[in-house]
Amino acid sequence: MSEINIRRMAKELNLSISTISKALHDSHEISIETKRKVRRKKSNTIAVVIPEVADSYFSLAINGIEAIAREKEYHVIVYLTHENAEREASILEDLSSGRVDGVLMSVSSETKNFEPLKNLHARNIPIVFFDRICDEIPTATVTTNDFESGYLAAKHLIKCGCKRISYLSISDQLSIINKRMEGYKKAIGDAENYNQKQEVINCSNDNVSTKKMIRELLIKKTAPDGIIASVEKLAIPVYEVCRELDIAIPQQLKMICFSNLPTATILNPPLTTINQPAFEMGKTAAEILFKALRKRSFQLKDLHKVIPSELITRESAC
Amino acid sequence: MSEINIRRMAKELNLSISTISKALHDSHEISIETKRKVRRKKSNTIAVVIPEVADSYFSLAINGIEAIAREKEYHVIVYLTHENAEREASILEDLSSGRVDGVLMSVSSETKNFEPLKNLHARNIPIVFFDRICDEIPTATVTTNDFESGYLAAKHLIKCGCKRISYLSISDQLSIINKRMEGYKKAIGDAENYNQKQEVINCSNDNVSTKKMIRELLIKKTAPDGIIASVEKLAIPVYEVCRELDIAIPQQLKMICFSNLPTATILNPPLTTINQPAFEMGKTAAEILFKALRKRSFQLKDLHKVIPSELITRESAC
Repeated sequence: MSEINIRRMAKELNLSISTISKALHDSHEISIETKRKVRRKKSNTIAVVIPEVADSYFSLAINGIEAIAREKEYHVIVYLTHENAEREASILEDLSSGRVDGVLMSVSSETKNFEPLKNLHARNIPIVFFDRICDEIPTATVTTNDFESGYLAAKHLIKCGCKRISYLSISDQLSIINKRMEGYKKAIGDAENYNQKQEVINCSNDNVSTKKMIRELLIKKTAPDGIIASVEKLAIPVYEVCRELDIAIPQQLKMICFSNLPTATILNPPLTTINQPAFEMGKTAAEILFKALRKRSFQLKDLHKVIPSELITRESAC
Repeated sequence: MSEINIRRMAKELNLSISTISKALHDSHEISIETKRKVRRKKSNTIAVVIPEVADSYFSLAINGIEAIAREKEYHVIVYLTHENAEREASILEDLSSGRVDGVLMSVSSETKNFEPLKNLHARNIPIVFFDRICDEIPTATVTTNDFESGYLAAKHLIKCGCKRISYLSISDQLSIINKRMEGYKKAIGDAENYNQKQEVINCSNDNVSTKKMIRELLIKKTAPDGIIASVEKLAIPVYEVCRELDIAIPQQLKMICFSNLPTATILNPPLTTINQPAFEMGKTAAEILFKALRKRSFQLKDLHKVIPSELITRESAC
């Protein structure tokens, strides 16, 4: 809670600022009744700041967060940055005013300036990052094993006989996308006796230009025979371009996508995916945040949870 | 804005309640400078209250809402009810405290008690409904032509040769689902010389029991040769059950779904959909809300916009 809010609350409840502060820290000096009074005056709301909801990862993560928030009788409000650094900054500024008690966040792919995040953190509003973290803020994180998953995806395509695997990226800013890429590169390197080629394509958040890039990739002479798509929204343009160019999946092109798409099983062909533990990650991040909200002395900064992803093989690869 | 907030603002700005009120109503009596002061003190936030974000309709509608809110330099916060009437009531109660300047809402499928909505409305916080409306609150609505779309869907299946078309519902509370059903029934009635049978299956918000109901429907002797699914999330279980029972779409079963699924084109087979103008509906609802926020005398109650949906034929029907 921000200092302004503590001061306001002290006035409203006719208590000293130090009593409010002790009550919020769950101090034994303060009576249960006073603690209750103080807690009732909090916003009882947490914010979830994420890039978008059209990605199944985030809609599942929200469900995990809400499962915990409901138990604690907290409201969850969702803010969308739409991968836009300026909008994200404006949201963080709004949150700095003390509108919520704590923040769960997945960073936009275009954020380069971390001052707005540092300002929010400096206000003593607890923040827990999930999935897309910001290394510059010393707080708790919940991630999945992105490096190992990238490695596993490439190994699987190599096992299926691919000789030219391309990796589709969407951002060179995001730690998760880069870790997946490093895993992919390591697997290619490890398999050098197979004479593997590696190639990273930097797609964008704009669907039209992404589809154009994928088209150029797939019509060239040295077109890949395997694709690893780093995020869910890249699956649709790859399938569409293959259909337009009459490229058969998996016969001519094998594909794995980092995705929690509920329609993966009914696509043509069904899509092999790296499924992230989205619900679990949201739930775990919320559990950590509520520990910090319950006890203000709870140390967030050295808490880093990693929950593994899972390769689910379907017909699009092998 | 609630009366409590107006009083608080008057105190903070050292202005009279009537001046604040006039400034909020954009009265010519009040100087631009004072209006600016008052406006700065508003929350500059609108709430979107919706059942879920896993449905493409809602994620697109949010984009439409945010396109307008960004122009107006407002924050958008999203609350999810998860189709649960109790959670919805708790959110509406929270909003009644004046946390936001206005509310855009699509009602949960399980809401039977409209008191929480009536209370929010009584606080003079402007509300605009989109898609799933509540007839008991006299305010603006933005809907699509659900009756005509249900009619069009059934007509299309009849034209494709279907003799037994089933309609999959998810709620008998929701006006939109019932209107789509009435359209379907009318088309069946109009085509009586074709000896059409009609059948409505009440699925639920629980995926497991829904899948079981669809399975029972499709194995019985009088199984349908056509299905109209009233909401997007019913598409996946129908496709899955068909796959498990080896029922070929569209040869043995033709299907149309009310859906904005971005993967519709790459499903096996591609899904014929009634596409709702989700982005446009969100955008229009937000535009109406901002008119009310700009000028408090703006009358919301008789404003009802209808934006038509579109049948997009793909291989799952004909």
